[in-house]
Amino acid sequence: MDQENKKQLASEWFRELRDNFCSQFETIDGEKFVRNKWSHSGEGGGEMSVMKGSVFEKVGVNISTVNGRFKEEFRENVSGTENSPNYWASGISIVAHMHSPYIPAFHFNTRFIATDEQWFGGGADLTPTIINDDDVEEFHNTFRDACNNHDKSYYQNFRKQCEEYFFLPHRNEERGKGGIFFDHMNTGDWKKDFEFVKEVGMAFLKVVPSIIKKRKDIGWDENEKNLQLLKRGRYVEFNLLWDRGTQFGLKTGGNTEAILMSMPPEAKWD
Amino acid sequence: MDQENKKQLASEWFRELRDNFCSQFETIDGEKFVRNKWSHSGEGGGEMSVMKGSVFEKVGVNISTVNGRFKEEFRENVSGTENSPNYWASGISIVAHMHSPYIPAFHFNTRFIATDEQWFGGGADLTPTIINDDDVEEFHNTFRDACNNHDKSYYQNFRKQCEEYFFLPHRNEERGKGGIFFDHMNTGDWKKDFEFVKEVGMAFLKVVPSIIKKRKDIGWDENEKNLQLLKRGRYVEFNLLWDRGTQFGLKTGGNTEAILMSMPPEAKWD
Repeated sequence: MDQENKKQLASEWFRELRDNFCSQFETIDGEKFVRNKWSHSGEGGGEMSVMKGSVFEKVGVNISTVNGRFKEEFRENVSGTENSPNYWASGISIVAHMHSPYIPAFHFNTRFIATDEQWFGGGADLTPTIINDDDVEEFHNTFRDACNNHDKSYYQNFRKQCEEYFFLPHRNEERGKGGIFFDHMNTGDWKKDFEFVKEVGMAFLKVVPSIIKKRKDIGWDENEKNLQLLKRGRYVEFNLLWDRGTQFGLKTGGNTEAILMSMPPEAKWD
Repeated sequence: MDQENKKQLASEWFRELRDNFCSQFETIDGEKFVRNKWSHSGEGGGEMSVMKGSVFEKVGVNISTVNGRFKEEFRENVSGTENSPNYWASGISIVAHMHSPYIPAFHFNTRFIATDEQWFGGGADLTPTIINDDDVEEFHNTFRDACNNHDKSYYQNFRKQCEEYFFLPHRNEERGKGGIFFDHMNTGDWKKDFEFVKEVGMAFLKVVPSIIKKRKDIGWDENEKNLQLLKRGRYVEFNLLWDRGTQFGLKTGGNTEAILMSMPPEAKWD
């Protein structure tokens, strides 16, 4: 398959998945997403969909397809840019901050990157405040199954990468309760890798509504809400201090509003 | 004057100033500071004083006197470490987040650093939500006067450095309404530099209570409070993404609680 074909298939899938997520989340919430288009400082652009509802305190679903030329200072950090600074990237990102401290915050991302090399990356993880082991298990089981359908080594490997990535060294704390994280995936069989990436998206589309539906009618008190706001403070610390995507995006002319869509609507510090 | 003498005079001054600030702020607020000592991963340590009151939503006053050896990766960024990785540092930091959106957030820091070189650094700035030009002017005039008592070139120079430093490139926004910022101050006359640093502390001790007293009885509505919480979101972004002291402190074994004392008690994002 030629490169242009792959780019088209990947970016179309991310858009289709976006439509599915927005539709599912609107059904759960009753509120509607507000959509904004933005254009990239290189070429291309994205669409940011945000809903502030009665179940979702704030959920953002962002897709983008951009291309450009990396500045010299960034090339050393990106594979396949030794001979050419050109890049193309398409992806989908979701961050959901819920009203209820009984429902975890959810994060999901998948992307396809092409320089002189090409690869998929992505992952999904959950950040509960009041930890319900059943939910954590359901989340992990869903991604274990999705992984196992493709390669028996994936789940342990990607789970470990997730644990290592979503960690706050300055607090010696994990951000959440894990999930999966993978990067530079290129097995040499593009179709196979693409099928896996699609399955990760479908897994998230299945497990998030399932957990929300189980927990959304539980009431909470001010003290529990406060714990959630403090947990979100840690979430902010991770994203601004340690998240490579955030740092990289803000320093390569990415769209600030889209990148910082991950910020919670409200957070507290002790 | 020998080096040990300078270190002692500087650290004693920072402690004395801390006591003055805490006492002044307690008088304004009616609440009391809670004090916690911490020790450094190298040697030395600090004392963190935090008050959550009726005027001050959260104010932190931190002093520390530490020494250690810089890791190789940090030496290139610090003057006077070419031949030795040893450093000694003492300083005072204040961050005040107010309940009222009519009172600016205030920030102040002065420090004395010794490697094979030695210098003072510091500054003071204000971050209003609802901007009152009189307050901004009073703040700047106070520091202009303090600067002019020592060197006629200081104020313009340090004001400009403050503007350049407290800027959010990813938002193309300034953090606040300026103040002064200086670093690597060593004119060759230690006593003179120390006198200036003391005067900057005294200026902050004078102007902050003055502005607070003028504004503390003005009422505010939910909408105005909300604007303040959004402004604090930007404050968080600056401190975690761009503040060199925060990044440096968290990566050199600094005390996380003391460094992140600057975080507001509550913040919002759109």
